[in-house]
Amino acid sequence: MTWDVLNIIGTIAFALSGAFVAIEEKYDLLGIYVLGLVTAFGGGVIRNLLIGVPVTTLWEQELLLKLALLAMTIVFLLPASLLSSWKRLLIFFDAIGLAAFAVQGALHAKAMNLPISAIMIAAMLTGIGGGIIRDILAGRKPLVLREETYAIWAILAGFLIGIEVVNSSNSLHLYLLALLVICLRLLAVKYNWRLPRRSFS
Amino acid sequence: MTWDVLNIIGTIAFALSGAFVAIEEKYDLLGIYVLGLVTAFGGGVIRNLLIGVPVTTLWEQELLLKLALLAMTIVFLLPASLLSSWKRLLIFFDAIGLAAFAVQGALHAKAMNLPISAIMIAAMLTGIGGGIIRDILAGRKPLVLREETYAIWAILAGFLIGIEVVNSSNSLHLYLLALLVICLRLLAVKYNWRLPRRSFS
Amino acid sequence: MTWDVLNIIGTIAFALSGAFVAIEEKYDLLGIYVLGLVTAFGGGVIRNLLIGVPVTTLWEQELLLKLALLAMTIVFLLPASLLSSWKRLLIFFDAIGLAAFAVQGALHAKAMNLPISAIMIAAMLTGIGGGIIRDILAGRKPLVLREETYAIWAILAGFLIGIEVVNSSNSLHLYLLALLVICLRLLAVKYNWRLPRRSFS
Repeated sequence: MTWDVLNIIGTIAFALSGAFVAIEEKYDLLGIYVLGLVTAFGGGVIRNLLIGVPVTTLWEQELLLKLALLAMTIVFLLPASLLSSWKRLLIFFDAIGLAAFAVQGALHAKAMNLPISAIMIAAMLTGIGGGIIRDILAGRKPLVLREETYAIWAILAGFLIGIEVVNSSNSLHLYLLALLVICLRLLAVKYNWRLPRRSFS
Repeated sequence: MTWDVLNIIGTIAFALSGAFVAIEEKYDLLGIYVLGLVTAFGGGVIRNLLIGVPVTTLWEQELLLKLALLAMTIVFLLPASLLSSWKRLLIFFDAIGLAAFAVQGALHAKAMNLPISAIMIAAMLTGIGGGIIRDILAGRKPLVLREETYAIWAILAGFLIGIEVVNSSNSLHLYLLALLVICLRLLAVKYNWRLPRRSFS
Repeated sequence: MTWDVLNIIGTIAFALSGAFVAIEEKYDLLGIYVLGLVTAFGGGVIRNLLIGVPVTTLWEQELLLKLALLAMTIVFLLPASLLSSWKRLLIFFDAIGLAAFAVQGALHAKAMNLPISAIMIAAMLTGIGGGIIRDILAGRKPLVLREETYAIWAILAGFLIGIEVVNSSNSLHLYLLALLVICLRLLAVKYNWRLPRRSFS
């Protein structure tokens, strides 16, 4: 139940992040819907492809699809003055989405009896795959590969589920893990954490 | 029979649109073939992935593959003076491709007993998916997300098949639907129809 | 046995080419790993999708995955002065990767009883698919579509296996084919071979 709520919040937040990027790129209404949908559902599709879950499970998520379309339509109709304050709130919702998606991605891979490396990659792809497709469709370099610790927390969730520190059949464990991911993500934004980088010179 | 003809015209038109983009981007012969092929076949591949049809059906389309390669080779060898007049004709052929591909995409999704939302998305993806991959491989922002009503007619075809206003086992119905999509597309080009857009300021 | 060695060299070379592109684009550590992994494994995933081999075979390649991660970590830690000399060596290793990947791609398609066109495309996709995804994730136009004869040698390998000039169950044949691809690739780099191109003007 609570899990569904996290998932709904995450899906809407991801869809809105796609819609905002599309608006920034001056895409039209169709572009807004397409970018929103790929951000919300693209990560899960790539993960399912790679871990062998049928991609058609996508079509069983009609409620999420409708909520995402509804949220994007509301944003499209809102006055510009309201949009900017929404964008700040989005960072918080987006952290919930990252947590919900990463944990679910890891659980899917775990259920397929895949090795830890696959569980970590599945958690990461579910968390960041949609955002990467969004940025590519917007003609941008994927933000998550450049400037954020974003993906690390998804990988961490996969790792903790993979080594069974987090018991994947214990709801309380999973909620605490999601909460941990949310907190780490928000701390990373607040204190501007960065990953190391190299240069050739 | 007539349907096969529409499909052949559409495939060649899509392949040529990919070839022209590759030439504009100064890609070499291989780049021309690759962009042409992904434009002609990429939308169908993505659709099949998402609705659960085996992607390997691609290899049963050898005739289409050969015709696409032949058409691109001819364009590559034609003198430049002829190319520019071809490009105008291409808008007409491309509208046929959009119609043929959208209707087929919708029929595939309908045959898998998917919900209306999936039928609309399948029609859209078959119609615009190849063009989106083409633009990304060319380093461009996908045209269809920015400046065109292009995708709307594909979605409309999916909607009309999904709600069964168009009977998907009645050839006449399907031809009329394809004709409707072609006309709407050409009217949209002629009168420069646009979708609404938002801005933050 | 020898084949495994070629495959390992190729995987590491492809991973490092991804890591170098990520460093050039100032991506962070995560971006380096992601670009390296998609370059090394992306071509095989696309090929498997298109020819109907389960994509999940990816997770049986844990040794390759670990070697790729190890190699990228070493590059990340090396002083800049060493990196530039490594980059030259990489052209040689990369030719080995192209040969190993193209031959394997063709063998996979041949084992699925696909037509020659599919075998050629499978060889090409395995050889260049990872590099194309790498360039797109780096916000670049795919190098292989613009300036190189790179893909031609992969297609040639697929053709020779497809028409059975090369006997796909004879190891000696396959090694000679791989050697041929490596030599042609290195000659193409040395003498700066180019494919023909068109322009509109």
